Amino acid sequence: MSARNDCKSYVVQMNGNAVHNGKRLNGSGVNKKAVHHVSVHGSLHPLKSKSRRERWEVKPSVMADNTFNPIRAIVDGMKLSPHPDKPMIALSIGDPTVFGNLPTDDEVLKAMKDAIDAQQYNGYAPSVGYLKSRQAVANFYSCPEAPLEAEDVILTSGCSQAIDLAISVLCNPGDNIMVPRPGFSLYKTLAVSLGIEVRLYNLLPEKSWEVDLQHLESLMDDRTSCLIVTNPSNPCGSVFSKDHVQKILTVASRNHVPILADEIYSNMVFPGCESPSLPSLSCDVPIISCGGLAKRWLVPGWRLGWVLIHDRNNIFGSEIRQGLVKLSQRILGACTIVQGALEGILNNTRQSFYEDTVRFLKSNAEICFNELSTVPGLTPIMPSGAMYLMVGIDMDSFPDFHNDVDFTEQLVTEQSVFCLPATAFEYPNFFRIVVTVPEQMMVEACSRIREFCQHHYRPGSHNSNDLDQ
Amino acid sequence: MSARNDCKSYVVQMNGNAVHNGKRLNGSGVNKKAVHHVSVHGSLHPLKSKSRRERWEVKPSVMADNTFNPIRAIVDGMKLSPHPDKPMIALSIGDPTVFGNLPTDDEVLKAMKDAIDAQQYNGYAPSVGYLKSRQAVANFYSCPEAPLEAEDVILTSGCSQAIDLAISVLCNPGDNIMVPRPGFSLYKTLAVSLGIEVRLYNLLPEKSWEVDLQHLESLMDDRTSCLIVTNPSNPCGSVFSKDHVQKILTVASRNHVPILADEIYSNMVFPGCESPSLPSLSCDVPIISCGGLAKRWLVPGWRLGWVLIHDRNNIFGSEIRQGLVKLSQRILGACTIVQGALEGILNNTRQSFYEDTVRFLKSNAEICFNELSTVPGLTPIMPSGAMYLMVGIDMDSFPDFHNDVDFTEQLVTEQSVFCLPATAFEYPNFFRIVVTVPEQMMVEACSRIREFCQHHYRPGSHNSNDLDQ
Repeated sequence: MSARNDCKSYVVQMNGNAVHNGKRLNGSGVNKKAVHHVSVHGSLHPLKSKSRRERWEVKPSVMADNTFNPIRAIVDGMKLSPHPDKPMIALSIGDPTVFGNLPTDDEVLKAMKDAIDAQQYNGYAPSVGYLKSRQAVANFYSCPEAPLEAEDVILTSGCSQAIDLAISVLCNPGDNIMVPRPGFSLYKTLAVSLGIEVRLYNLLPEKSWEVDLQHLESLMDDRTSCLIVTNPSNPCGSVFSKDHVQKILTVASRNHVPILADEIYSNMVFPGCESPSLPSLSCDVPIISCGGLAKRWLVPGWRLGWVLIHDRNNIFGSEIRQGLVKLSQRILGACTIVQGALEGILNNTRQSFYEDTVRFLKSNAEICFNELSTVPGLTPIMPSGAMYLMVGIDMDSFPDFHNDVDFTEQLVTEQSVFCLPATAFEYPNFFRIVVTVPEQMMVEACSRIREFCQHHYRPGSHNSNDLDQ
Repeated sequence: MSARNDCKSYVVQMNGNAVHNGKRLNGSGVNKKAVHHVSVHGSLHPLKSKSRRERWEVKPSVMADNTFNPIRAIVDGMKLSPHPDKPMIALSIGDPTVFGNLPTDDEVLKAMKDAIDAQQYNGYAPSVGYLKSRQAVANFYSCPEAPLEAEDVILTSGCSQAIDLAISVLCNPGDNIMVPRPGFSLYKTLAVSLGIEVRLYNLLPEKSWEVDLQHLESLMDDRTSCLIVTNPSNPCGSVFSKDHVQKILTVASRNHVPILADEIYSNMVFPGCESPSLPSLSCDVPIISCGGLAKRWLVPGWRLGWVLIHDRNNIFGSEIRQGLVKLSQRILGACTIVQGALEGILNNTRQSFYEDTVRFLKSNAEICFNELSTVPGLTPIMPSGAMYLMVGIDMDSFPDFHNDVDFTEQLVTEQSVFCLPATAFEYPNFFRIVVTVPEQMMVEACSRIREFCQHHYRPGSHNSNDLDQ
């Protein structure tokens, strides 16, 4: 690219209205005068007279203004004053490390120290990650139905950057993407900041949070550039059956929409549940699967994520792959020490570590579900994986509160128990419980929630178990 | 934000041309039919008939297409076939760890292992970083002229993300930013990918790469939203005097343009050179200073960078600060293990480590400068800091080559020495030498460069020392 190409943009005066690259500018009090082009040092530059800024006027960009974290906005707006006599129990944070009861595996720590001692992982890695680390991820996730090579893997700064890369490569401003409701708020945060329209497709609580396929398909059109599927789900803890995954793939295939599979909770599935990955069942739909160490290895702060490219029919082709590589060069990716440790982490983590984690999550989820199932006015939905459980609130039976935000705020005030209102996931009248807390804390929290509900419950004329109202 | 706001975008048929949110769509072979609005589950959604895609057509986004790394593009286009009898010497890579002669300090490694053992740094940190780690950075860089508090610090995934945040918060598409020529290519990569115009201001080799202030100011107008200053400089190795920094600040102040100070090489200044930071001399100009562990602590792969907000006159105000915080929530920042180690790294790294590094860089730079000063047709410019040295090529005296890319390519073919052609920094007819290689390698490389030049030198009618031609 030559310097000559650098000055494509200039301001001209037209009928008293400033026009910039064909777009009308807001006349925000700045002086705009005619701009001519002259050759300076051999390249074209605009020559201006008195068009400099007359005063300091530094405003955040539209992108910054449009970057919006719904969870932060809602939580920051809540008055969270715990009851002084009751220790706070936070069931709100999707971070399994908070209470210290779920340490990572010793082999993970050992791999990190070995990487430091090796003194081979201090320099820059390729922007897509070390080849041997990408190979390790490919080996770990490859299966006969969805084989992976190192070239199908890009290492990222956490699963968030993986999702950012996937959305950024597939979508242009003005496109729309399909996002589950309820769903993880980051999809919307990223998409809106990039000028991409978010269309929310419904999950059905009465069907264990399966996708409302008809609703999903009704939202798709020729500007739909991506279908996001979260499986297992945050915030629902649901895991789709093989049959349901196939139906989702059929809708994507019929509408020719590629899938962003958020599989950060992959393999975190309770014993006895089947859990086929989307890529393993796809015949034609190209899939960008996003994952990472965060949840399964219980180290979300380490920011080691990955993009896995599944494209059996070569629909993405080299263009999407090259696009991902180019976008990875913007800020580079994961810390090289964690990259250096990755092979050891994936190969040496004990099988019993994974099993113990999932067994604990299932046990805690069952305690929570069983306790809250008998609380008047609440309808917990039993999860099958991940680390969350959603609870429906029959708002008509709790006339003291306007909505789930109100309800959960008062739960903190009276009982020092904090659950995230599901309005944060675009799903009012529910709240989300994180089931990673120590068992005794889970029991105590459920007991306090029961006391809170018994205190406020006013059975109305509605059937409190009818979720469709 | 309610679900009702999610469907702002729809497609209508107008006089046979599809119009999308007021912008004309390219008729790329897709079917566009009338769209109506109906209420689905209580919110507005477009109802379409047959507006789905008829075939697979997945293309990378405009942003991906516009993400462009000039160094990669140039290097990937070169035929790099080293001479079979001479071992390769790469003076091209700005990574001080490549040759193993510059390990980081033992205290840095100890701090990392302590952070792993603490088992306190596995979970999510706030998106701006741990408070105590931000405090440690503030303490380390605070000075009476430019005081810093923890709230002025945001930790990032490497200095690249710091630069990305700074550009993203200050600039809108259609704005322009001032970028030094020669300069680090990432500024352009990031800006162009965001639709921001890059205007290159000249540095003057005959004045030790000071800014051509008149040229700089001639490029500024009321759409100039940021002035990038790299000091010490990559690729020049130059360090600005106090007087020159003040002149740059005067231009910024007069034009009311905030500064992005890339200070990743701060304090990497040769003994005897003064090196005032931009923030320490600014009276009114608000400055976002970007830095990190990469260069001074010799661990570029660890991706621990920071943004320092200097805004004595409250021109950024809370809005820019909030904008930075919001943007930091898109993908979160640095690995928590490195964040946890940061206080120990900053407080315990031995003074002698810093001094030894800089002394080595100066010694190697002097060897290189002295050697190449007597090579016919070359004009090295002695640096004062960082880890680079730029060398001018009198192309008229080397008729075998068209340009610096040609020249450096053939240098690999004949002498197995690879220097980056400065076309990669928008500055043809120069090449950049990285001075972090072991001393014997530097001596050998200079000797081979001499042999290469002697072989190809054909003195012409021009004065080969005249850099202005």
